[in-house]
Amino acid sequence: MKFLMENEVKDILEDYGIKTAKCLFARDEDEAVEYAKQIGYPVVMKVASRKIIHKSDVGGVLLNLNSEEEVRQGFRKLISIKDVEGVNVQPALKKGIEVIVGVSENEQFGSVVMFGLGGVFVEVLKDVSMRLLPLSRKDAEEMVKEIKGYRLLEGYRNYKGDVKALVDLLLKLNDVVEEQNIIEMDLNPIFVYEDGYAVADARAVVGKRREFDRVTKKDLHRLFYPESVAIIGASRTVGKPGYNIVWNLKQHGFRGRIYPVNPNADKILDYKCYPSILDIPDEIDMAIIAVPAKLVPQVMEQCAEKHVKGAVIVSSGFSEEGEIGAEYERRVLEIAKSSGIRIFGPNTTGVLNTDNGFITTFAKMPIIKVGDIGIVAQTGLFLGIIMAHVATSHPSIGFSKIVGMGNKIDVEDYEVLDFLLDDEKTKVIGMYIEGLKNGRSFYEISREAEKPIVVFKSGRSDYGKKAAMSHTASICGDDEVFSAMCKQANITRVYSFEEMFNVTKAFSLQPLPSGDNVALIHYTGSGCVQGADAIYFNNLKLAELSEETVKKIEEVTPEWHRVNNPLDIWPMVEYYGPYRAYDTAINALLSDENVDSLVVAMWAGIDIGGSIYNPDFKKIKEYGKPVYFVAEGLREGVFETKNRYEFNGFPVYPDIITAVNVLGKVSRYARRWD
Amino acid sequence: MKFLMENEVKDILEDYGIKTAKCLFARDEDEAVEYAKQIGYPVVMKVASRKIIHKSDVGGVLLNLNSEEEVRQGFRKLISIKDVEGVNVQPALKKGIEVIVGVSENEQFGSVVMFGLGGVFVEVLKDVSMRLLPLSRKDAEEMVKEIKGYRLLEGYRNYKGDVKALVDLLLKLNDVVEEQNIIEMDLNPIFVYEDGYAVADARAVVGKRREFDRVTKKDLHRLFYPESVAIIGASRTVGKPGYNIVWNLKQHGFRGRIYPVNPNADKILDYKCYPSILDIPDEIDMAIIAVPAKLVPQVMEQCAEKHVKGAVIVSSGFSEEGEIGAEYERRVLEIAKSSGIRIFGPNTTGVLNTDNGFITTFAKMPIIKVGDIGIVAQTGLFLGIIMAHVATSHPSIGFSKIVGMGNKIDVEDYEVLDFLLDDEKTKVIGMYIEGLKNGRSFYEISREAEKPIVVFKSGRSDYGKKAAMSHTASICGDDEVFSAMCKQANITRVYSFEEMFNVTKAFSLQPLPSGDNVALIHYTGSGCVQGADAIYFNNLKLAELSEETVKKIEEVTPEWHRVNNPLDIWPMVEYYGPYRAYDTAINALLSDENVDSLVVAMWAGIDIGGSIYNPDFKKIKEYGKPVYFVAEGLREGVFETKNRYEFNGFPVYPDIITAVNVLGKVSRYARRWD
Repeated sequence: MKFLMENEVKDILEDYGIKTAKCLFARDEDEAVEYAKQIGYPVVMKVASRKIIHKSDVGGVLLNLNSEEEVRQGFRKLISIKDVEGVNVQPALKKGIEVIVGVSENEQFGSVVMFGLGGVFVEVLKDVSMRLLPLSRKDAEEMVKEIKGYRLLEGYRNYKGDVKALVDLLLKLNDVVEEQNIIEMDLNPIFVYEDGYAVADARAVVGKRREFDRVTKKDLHRLFYPESVAIIGASRTVGKPGYNIVWNLKQHGFRGRIYPVNPNADKILDYKCYPSILDIPDEIDMAIIAVPAKLVPQVMEQCAEKHVKGAVIVSSGFSEEGEIGAEYERRVLEIAKSSGIRIFGPNTTGVLNTDNGFITTFAKMPIIKVGDIGIVAQTGLFLGIIMAHVATSHPSIGFSKIVGMGNKIDVEDYEVLDFLLDDEKTKVIGMYIEGLKNGRSFYEISREAEKPIVVFKSGRSDYGKKAAMSHTASICGDDEVFSAMCKQANITRVYSFEEMFNVTKAFSLQPLPSGDNVALIHYTGSGCVQGADAIYFNNLKLAELSEETVKKIEEVTPEWHRVNNPLDIWPMVEYYGPYRAYDTAINALLSDENVDSLVVAMWAGIDIGGSIYNPDFKKIKEYGKPVYFVAEGLREGVFETKNRYEFNGFPVYPDIITAVNVLGKVSRYARRWD
Repeated sequence: MKFLMENEVKDILEDYGIKTAKCLFARDEDEAVEYAKQIGYPVVMKVASRKIIHKSDVGGVLLNLNSEEEVRQGFRKLISIKDVEGVNVQPALKKGIEVIVGVSENEQFGSVVMFGLGGVFVEVLKDVSMRLLPLSRKDAEEMVKEIKGYRLLEGYRNYKGDVKALVDLLLKLNDVVEEQNIIEMDLNPIFVYEDGYAVADARAVVGKRREFDRVTKKDLHRLFYPESVAIIGASRTVGKPGYNIVWNLKQHGFRGRIYPVNPNADKILDYKCYPSILDIPDEIDMAIIAVPAKLVPQVMEQCAEKHVKGAVIVSSGFSEEGEIGAEYERRVLEIAKSSGIRIFGPNTTGVLNTDNGFITTFAKMPIIKVGDIGIVAQTGLFLGIIMAHVATSHPSIGFSKIVGMGNKIDVEDYEVLDFLLDDEKTKVIGMYIEGLKNGRSFYEISREAEKPIVVFKSGRSDYGKKAAMSHTASICGDDEVFSAMCKQANITRVYSFEEMFNVTKAFSLQPLPSGDNVALIHYTGSGCVQGADAIYFNNLKLAELSEETVKKIEEVTPEWHRVNNPLDIWPMVEYYGPYRAYDTAINALLSDENVDSLVVAMWAGIDIGGSIYNPDFKKIKEYGKPVYFVAEGLREGVFETKNRYEFNGFPVYPDIITAVNVLGKVSRYARRWD
């Protein structure tokens, strides 16, 4: 690690075409005077030292020196400062808009670049944007525009800054950081002018940049599509984990051969039992291991002997439970590495593949609908309570593959992500993440992804991190960097499991919107107001309806009522009945080329039981535009409506605000995807 | 309306003890020189004009004038500026932290004061706080501390500001604005020093301040507790609004006399019918009017003749539907005012009082549990779909009174609020608001309230406002001012109906926390992480457990597992069973004096049906601390658990994040209530 002095940094920057207030490094008074003459008065002089970070705090910056005498005096003053190594002489810069550009290394993601307005006000207000290096031009443009202070750069009162030049500067950092091995750099301040900019001060540290394992595509197919599976630690006792695993495989219709292993049982649920995996007279693709942690290394050795391809280690009692467990974990991993066995877990409910009924969870699991949402969750219990909730409260949401990652000693989130991105049964991926071991790979895979990725990340606070470490032994990245990474890779970030399901089901069932113009239908005025608010706060637009659309809808509207967007449909329902009102409005709005997407709210009343409107789903689909529904009212009526609509391919949400929030996230993804 | 010049404003401020860079107003060069001498060099000179708002934009500010000659030159320069009225001479101020204080009038709430850091950066970054005038000392202190830039005032690098002096300045504005009839004022910039401050520049407009009707307490008792009710427009036809109203009164067990009015029917649901209200041989307290709008004025005349005390006008077709309807509305209001009849609506489902079964909605309504939550909603349909949802999805939430306000031509939200604050059956009030006609009264009542008020306000965006106007003919206040008003009156703001019910039920069922230290129990590691995050983002604290507490819990904890907060209870459940694990942990945590409140997450699994733990509710209540539960898992198991716990007085939420968010809002209320 080597600290560079200001003059050294500026020399490097200049080599790459970045404009600076070039420094000349003076060791003695005469040299300083000589340099001042070369530069031309007035000059600025600054203390040069690898040890001094805030020069002005130690009186180390002298502005506006106008004569040889002033330079000499200045030099003497600066050279007496503690830790001084010399004095830098540079031209006095005309003031511009102060901005700061910084580079640092993040443990999870490597080099991060930060941009913001400079000065103490902004240090306090924290109006900054971040991105991972290297930047594309689009990244650089977005990060400049993202800060609130962008208004100054755009032109405000007497201010205006050269945005294009700033973007060029940011792009040049790609090479500077890469080729010069920069691990830390502050260009602060940079003065931005109407035409160009100049780096007024700079510091940098050179060192070994963090390296990440390269992403190599690995074939996980057999782990999801085994032809035979051994359950080691299978049990005859109803309700025990080792029983439930076998029960689930049977219940979910696993289309492969099932071999329970238990030295004390003959049969479990009609399947013949074997004393050990080595006794099974068949090849075994996957082992589900549910014996106590201390026995797992021994079982793994047998698996290796049997040439098993993969294992899901369900058992807990490993690194999450202290040093002894960590030792088991190390031995297990050693065996896995040397025998080529890939491992999910330990400490996990593991895998569900709805395509072949392969399921490894020890929690009795209701049937999950087949669909195209893939889930990767860094929590062992995902295929427990959470999926029991989904299966019973949202039985109409369909999944392709679900993986609970557990301790992740071998197979990583990003590998599963990579697999799901190639999986033709999967259209959208939902992820729950607490910490990443190789964030860079995760980012690189996500950035190239051609399917939407929806991420719920916890462990965002210091509090959260503490809890995350104690249970998964993994380290969380910094939340702001994670957020920036999501923007850069067009990952949709959500903040709860419920939101993850809400957003993934929209991606799963409906097309992407081709623009931001939304039409809303609600049966109450207050729903219209709430919907309009949500449109605004999600950076969407209320579509301006064409005259033709208004005319079509007016045919089912009482004279005194105005056809607007949002459309308050209640008077129309009163006069023309729910079917005619809704059907006319929906078809008119979807035919309007000013409308990119549509949200329709309906109710399930006490006299109805289900929804008040049964659309011709096929016809609505033909418009090729996203349509989301909202169902409100009686518990069972809403449930029935939701399931029926979702089975027919249209997502249903509990209220208009939730529906528009989902559309906002989907639209944001669509906008950036092009 | 009169614009004051800088010197006039400063003279006024000085009279109130606010320190300024006092101006002397010079009409000619000699006067300017004379004043400069009085003040002492250097001086600042500024153009004086009622028409020039941004003086520096027209070159109207000259700094640092050091001699008579410079003053003369300066005067000549300034006096040539367009619209000039003279020149102000003032002392040159030492620079300090620039802040801005502004006063303006808000249509809904009257005088608003704004505070922020000055300068263009902050104009762009909008780091400001607002409060309604008059301010208490606490208000003034909070508004200074609320801005992000407060860090500078507190002391940061070379910055430090006299916060106490600033607070004093803000408090003096109470009298300045009131006594001088200020309708607009900018003190910008004010320089704040380590010791004191000085107002460097100032402008103000004097005029007629907005006036609001004074709040006079009105007795609405009879409107909620009628002894007799006439339903005008009652119908025999099942499903019609006029039928449903009678059906609801019967179904909900109204404890008063019921008289349907319909000239063409003898009986409706066993009640004798009368041709008109005048034919009823009894006194009538309340009329529920469900005839078409055009007939309502005539019906109201009959009600007046009958000396009815109040009416709920259910019918639509009034001002929300154009000019003809507005004319009906005016006539109805005229009759009401002259006869002393109070009116709810028109265009509303009206009132429900669970205390006596009085209900006026035309939507068939399932039975609503009796409880102590009062609701005032500015939407006609509240006692329709929304309450059908609550009654069936949250049957365990209990209500005292519910009012859907409709068009609000007479009885106002704040009157109902005032009534509910006095109502001994009501403990907490939930409100849905789109716009207020008299925000100031609403604020004054809320500020004095001794019960929590929870507000969901829509019409926050420009989009929302447009929709709000078209359906309630009322004007919405500005969202930032509304938000500030909520802080000042300790109103809890929420952002959806669901959140309104979540928060009000916590207030209803559980005591307030006496501090911010929270203990969490979850059955998964990921739940612990999510809960810890939510604690952090809600400005709560994770309680530090006492040694004794840890010891007690360790008795049901396997050796290798660490007792922490959040408490991951899964290993304890595995070793000691759910009852012993949960019961030990809950009692230990509630006994700990470091713990102010507790959130406990449980699951309802496939083998269980309901929750896994049946607490001794009475015992838990005795600790006198708030305890919220979370139930996750199977749809019906969760529903059963939620209802059972809530019937026993403990609120249940769908996930830990939601529960902690509610606790965050309740704690914020409790903190400010003292």
